[in-house]
Amino acid sequence: MLLTVLTVQINNSEKGVINMTKTSSEQKRCSILNSMVDNIYRPEIPGIVDLVVNSCSDRGCFDHLEAAVIPSREALIEIIDLIKDILFPGYFGDQTVDKNTLPYHLGNEITELFSKLSEQITNSIIHECNRHDEECTECIDRGHEETLRFLKKIPEIRSMLASDIIATYEGDPAAKNYDEIIFSYPGIFAMTVYRSAHELHKQGISIIPRIMTEYAHSVVGIDIHPGANIGKGFFIDHGTGVVIGETCEIGDNVRIYQGVTLGSLSFPKDETGKLIRDKKRHPTIENDVVIYSNATILGGDTVIGARTVIGGNVWITKSVPPDTKVVIEEPRLIFKEKK
Amino acid sequence: MLLTVLTVQINNSEKGVINMTKTSSEQKRCSILNSMVDNIYRPEIPGIVDLVVNSCSDRGCFDHLEAAVIPSREALIEIIDLIKDILFPGYFGDQTVDKNTLPYHLGNEITELFSKLSEQITNSIIHECNRHDEECTECIDRGHEETLRFLKKIPEIRSMLASDIIATYEGDPAAKNYDEIIFSYPGIFAMTVYRSAHELHKQGISIIPRIMTEYAHSVVGIDIHPGANIGKGFFIDHGTGVVIGETCEIGDNVRIYQGVTLGSLSFPKDETGKLIRDKKRHPTIENDVVIYSNATILGGDTVIGARTVIGGNVWITKSVPPDTKVVIEEPRLIFKEKK
Amino acid sequence: MLLTVLTVQINNSEKGVINMTKTSSEQKRCSILNSMVDNIYRPEIPGIVDLVVNSCSDRGCFDHLEAAVIPSREALIEIIDLIKDILFPGYFGDQTVDKNTLPYHLGNEITELFSKLSEQITNSIIHECNRHDEECTECIDRGHEETLRFLKKIPEIRSMLASDIIATYEGDPAAKNYDEIIFSYPGIFAMTVYRSAHELHKQGISIIPRIMTEYAHSVVGIDIHPGANIGKGFFIDHGTGVVIGETCEIGDNVRIYQGVTLGSLSFPKDETGKLIRDKKRHPTIENDVVIYSNATILGGDTVIGARTVIGGNVWITKSVPPDTKVVIEEPRLIFKEKK
Repeated sequence: MLLTVLTVQINNSEKGVINMTKTSSEQKRCSILNSMVDNIYRPEIPGIVDLVVNSCSDRGCFDHLEAAVIPSREALIEIIDLIKDILFPGYFGDQTVDKNTLPYHLGNEITELFSKLSEQITNSIIHECNRHDEECTECIDRGHEETLRFLKKIPEIRSMLASDIIATYEGDPAAKNYDEIIFSYPGIFAMTVYRSAHELHKQGISIIPRIMTEYAHSVVGIDIHPGANIGKGFFIDHGTGVVIGETCEIGDNVRIYQGVTLGSLSFPKDETGKLIRDKKRHPTIENDVVIYSNATILGGDTVIGARTVIGGNVWITKSVPPDTKVVIEEPRLIFKEKK
Repeated sequence: MLLTVLTVQINNSEKGVINMTKTSSEQKRCSILNSMVDNIYRPEIPGIVDLVVNSCSDRGCFDHLEAAVIPSREALIEIIDLIKDILFPGYFGDQTVDKNTLPYHLGNEITELFSKLSEQITNSIIHECNRHDEECTECIDRGHEETLRFLKKIPEIRSMLASDIIATYEGDPAAKNYDEIIFSYPGIFAMTVYRSAHELHKQGISIIPRIMTEYAHSVVGIDIHPGANIGKGFFIDHGTGVVIGETCEIGDNVRIYQGVTLGSLSFPKDETGKLIRDKKRHPTIENDVVIYSNATILGGDTVIGARTVIGGNVWITKSVPPDTKVVIEEPRLIFKEKK
Repeated sequence: MLLTVLTVQINNSEKGVINMTKTSSEQKRCSILNSMVDNIYRPEIPGIVDLVVNSCSDRGCFDHLEAAVIPSREALIEIIDLIKDILFPGYFGDQTVDKNTLPYHLGNEITELFSKLSEQITNSIIHECNRHDEECTECIDRGHEETLRFLKKIPEIRSMLASDIIATYEGDPAAKNYDEIIFSYPGIFAMTVYRSAHELHKQGISIIPRIMTEYAHSVVGIDIHPGANIGKGFFIDHGTGVVIGETCEIGDNVRIYQGVTLGSLSFPKDETGKLIRDKKRHPTIENDVVIYSNATILGGDTVIGARTVIGGNVWITKSVPPDTKVVIEEPRLIFKEKK
């Protein structure tokens, strides 16, 4: 009834033609018209909802209605912000902290981290039990215990990151000082998230480490799987497009540039044709290696020996001895004078 | 008058020298000083505003004052979040939904999507009319009708995405389970946005599909033009740097890796020297093709035949027959022992 | 005391086994249990806080407790949003502005920018003084003066960006109109941030320009150092993975594609083995050059002459004369028919 009236009104207003005028009062009118027209079309919505709900029962739909609890990406982003602030006090977040108030500041932040992280870890444990149709034995206790285990590693994570920051300063002439590096270098952000996620991964926590590193990937374009092992003093410059696979083993003081892939060569399948998921598929990089931009190193048996330098654009699928420099034979360029 | 007093105060405080002290009370003083000094310099602002306003009248300035309404990027990001939640119920957003409450949950979300999306689509239609100096005939009605058309496609979009998720699990040994893929894989986010934007693009909606896919590009580094056609079971691994051009035709069960470009070879111009904008410029990829990292395939006449495998770093500008494996001749590497 | 009671309750509830049930009431119970268990483990937190605080006194920890004030990344992101809205009125933010209200709109925005930016610039000056253990002479005044200097450059920055937008339209057949470019092209966002940061960099402001361009890098994957010099009409297509180094000199009407690196060849060190930080290390690109995707051009003495075209994947470490076309010799591809 009301709808009919509205329809008539609209059809009467300039015969259904809305002339695009440019004043604010016209804009307001457009907005009112818009919500009136909304009401005319709304009766179609229930049919569409039915369609969507019904379509959700076949295989062509992934829902998450069976499980009670799952980790939340938003909560994990808050957790990463907290970790950053605890690892680098005074740089991010509340910047008025000083030496005297540091214990209170860290006390608050660590307590908050404990609450938030234990909830997410508990959820991930329950989610995992559920997925395997197992009974969840003392999941909440285990969630809290794993959180405490992680918190105790903070000094070690911070010390590893300090080595990364020093390596960055020593490796990049564009870096003016440590503060600039901590504030703005994408590689340091990626390593902060990776080094935290890696510890959780080692504790056997599922899903959470991967959501964390994929968040870092989305922020800085550097994709490090939390399963990779990376030594101290790791420096990634620029970083966009870097991929470091799950089973990489990387030594100390390694430096890599944008677009470097440390990937797998091929995926072995078992006799039933299914992918084998737990084999070393990615390369080993020994201490003090430098890998320049867009180089690709593939394969689980490939070892790059200590102190070796891999040039830009190099494509390697076999091992390289220590103390070697590998460069691509400069591709023959064709110089054509333009007409 | 007040300003003079303040100036004197500042000049009196340590003769214009602000010694960098480290206590919070000093910090507070700095902050107060800062806003006092603000007032001293504010009289210069009106002159700058005039300068900026006046400079806006020449060609060296793009403003959007002529048009009444335009799509809003922020609103479209909210719309993408809604679509994600409708497509994968229980994964994102409110996670307490269960089978019994699913209809109400989806009912609410679809109603909200209807309101928000119809406003944006209407704005894009009005914007387009305006740009061509056309009268806007029944724009608001058309905006709502196009929104309903889109909503009815949700089951189909969801089914296509389910095939992408299954292809991802089957293609990546690092994927532990479907949940990890839905939560964290950048390729799935890119495809969720692309598959939705592509439907709007097919309906002839302007600007919105492109804003949507560029948002996904900024989040995950995967740049898929909404005009491309992509079959089911598409798997993008890692994804950073992937570019899929506007006129690509991609079959079913295709798999691509980071840094792959499916691009154009050159841009034909018409007789007046202007770019021709509607020709097929990008390649065709048939069913079951695999394209490894950083390969580049260019040109509108280039066809990669079914089941062919394109190796990493390959650069292709001509067609390749089906059932072929193309690899780069391994570039000769120069191994130098370092002194 | 209370804790003991809670423990007993939990242990009594199904013998420490939490069965993963799927109803909301169970979920609520889980959540209550979770916060009860929290209280049991909390006594461990003070020990961890001590551990973290104490570990912060050695070298393996970067804190920022010494300095009073530092630029804030969050504030700089707000500043970038303001700048965008001032440079392109009516496109972003409040879209109801028209010709009559433009002066008020810009007046408000510029005043807000003045306050926010002067605070950040002042902080960066104080931070810099502090870092060098210098007395901070009239830092707050200098902060405001530098802000006014920057604001006066807005018309020039806008005019440069207009030339970039026109170059983008003329260079990309997928671009349908200027609005689409301003709304959605990642290259335009990167250039908006770069051109603003570059002016601040020229004024000698530290840290802020780098935080700004690294923010743009994280949003669009395009890494332009604020120290680079880039002429008018610069067009970056797709852009993911682009790296433009600190000492690049780029002429007018240059066009580059995704994955292009304009980088340094090697880092000269001084006699003490330290990196020399202020030498030209990156190439010079003259007017009207086009550089296709994933090309790499390295070295401070490398000059690419005017109107030259550099093909995709080319790797260049030496100068190229004007009016030349450089393409990679197409790598020999190996075609293997699959069994």
